[in-house]
Amino acid sequence: MSTYTPTVEDLIDKLATLPGVGKKTAARLALHILRSSQDEAQALARSILRVKERVGLCQICFNIAEGDQCVICRNSQRDRSVLCVVEDPNDLISVEATGVFKGLYHVLHGAIAPLDGVGPQELKIAELLERLERDKVVEVIIATNPTVEGDATALYLAKVIKPLGIMVTRIAQGVPAGGDIEYVDSRTMSRSLEGRKEV
Amino acid sequence: MSTYTPTVEDLIDKLATLPGVGKKTAARLALHILRSSQDEAQALARSILRVKERVGLCQICFNIAEGDQCVICRNSQRDRSVLCVVEDPNDLISVEATGVFKGLYHVLHGAIAPLDGVGPQELKIAELLERLERDKVVEVIIATNPTVEGDATALYLAKVIKPLGIMVTRIAQGVPAGGDIEYVDSRTMSRSLEGRKEV
Repeated sequence: MSTYTPTVEDLIDKLATLPGVGKKTAARLALHILRSSQDEAQALARSILRVKERVGLCQICFNIAEGDQCVICRNSQRDRSVLCVVEDPNDLISVEATGVFKGLYHVLHGAIAPLDGVGPQELKIAELLERLERDKVVEVIIATNPTVEGDATALYLAKVIKPLGIMVTRIAQGVPAGGDIEYVDSRTMSRSLEGRKEV
Repeated sequence: MSTYTPTVEDLIDKLATLPGVGKKTAARLALHILRSSQDEAQALARSILRVKERVGLCQICFNIAEGDQCVICRNSQRDRSVLCVVEDPNDLISVEATGVFKGLYHVLHGAIAPLDGVGPQELKIAELLERLERDKVVEVIIATNPTVEGDATALYLAKVIKPLGIMVTRIAQGVPAGGDIEYVDSRTMSRSLEGRKEV
C-alpha cells in the first residue's frame, strides 16, 4: 500500500489504532477527511484536542465528566442509596436511556479478565468499596455485560460487597424484547429459563 | 443521550459525520480517544491537520498527491499510453496492489448517479478528455465499480472516448478468485457467463 503519500499513510496508521477500525476502513476515513473542507477537518481535530483538555473522569463514580463530578453525581434528585455498577461509560448511557433507574452509578472501566491480565486491582473496585463504606448504600445493582468476564466480575463483586451488609442484585438475562424465540442462542435461552417468573 | 458532556457530544457528532460511522460507533471511538493518552490524541489531531495542509490532488490524474503530481505520474518508468480510469483513489490502490498494471491512472472522484445529482460535470471527466487529446493514449481501461453507477459511468465514458479513436476496455466481471460457485449471486454469475472465454 505504498501508493499513498507518507502524510496519508501516517493518518491511516493513526486511525487504524481506533477500536473496530482496520486498515481498509482507516483508508476510507482518511480519504473522507482529505475530501472534506479545511474547516471540517479542523473542527474534527479541535474537537479531539478539546475532549482531552476538558473531559476527565468523575471523582465519585468514574463516569466521564467535565469538572470534578459528572452530571449524574451532581444531580441532587438522584437516589443516593442505590448504585448501578457498569463496565463502561457507554453502558451507563444504555441504562440511563431507559429513564427507569434513578440512583447513582459506578463505572469499573473494564471487567475482570485474567487472560488479558485484568484483575480486580486494574478496575475501580477499591474505589467502589470505599464509596460503599462511606455512603449509605442499600443496594448495588450489577449491570456488567452478560459475558464470561462480566459474569466473573459480578461474582467477585457479590463476594466482596455482601459482607458489608448491602444487597447485591444483577440485571436479568433472557430473551431480548422484540426478539424471535426461534433465533435465540442456547446460552441466552438457558439463562432465560433459569430466570423465569410466575405470571 | 444527554448523559455525555457537551464536549464529548461534540466529538461524537463530528466523528459521526465520517462514512460508515453511526452514533454508536462514534460514541465508542470518542470513549477510546478519551481513554488514550494526551500524546496519542494530539498525534491523531495533528495527523488530520497535516493531511489537509500537505496533501492535495495530482494535477494530472487527480490521485492524492503531496505536491503537484502523484508518485505514479512522476514515475518515468510508467507506460504513458495506457490509462486506467477509477472512481476513487482507494480503487487505484486495489489495481496497483496487483503489480500488473504499468500505465497511468485517472481518478474520476465518483460515478455518474443521476438520482444523487451526480452528472458527468461533477466528475473529472472533462479533465480526462483534455488529457486524452493532449497525450498519446492508445487504450483507456475502465475500472469503475461493477454497480449501476459504475456501469453507467463506463457506458458514458465509452461513448465520449471512442470518437477520439482510442480503444476503450473494461475490467472483466465474473466469479471472484477463490470464491465458491454455489454462493455466487445471480448477477455476478450472469456477468461471468457473458464474459466466458475459450480455454
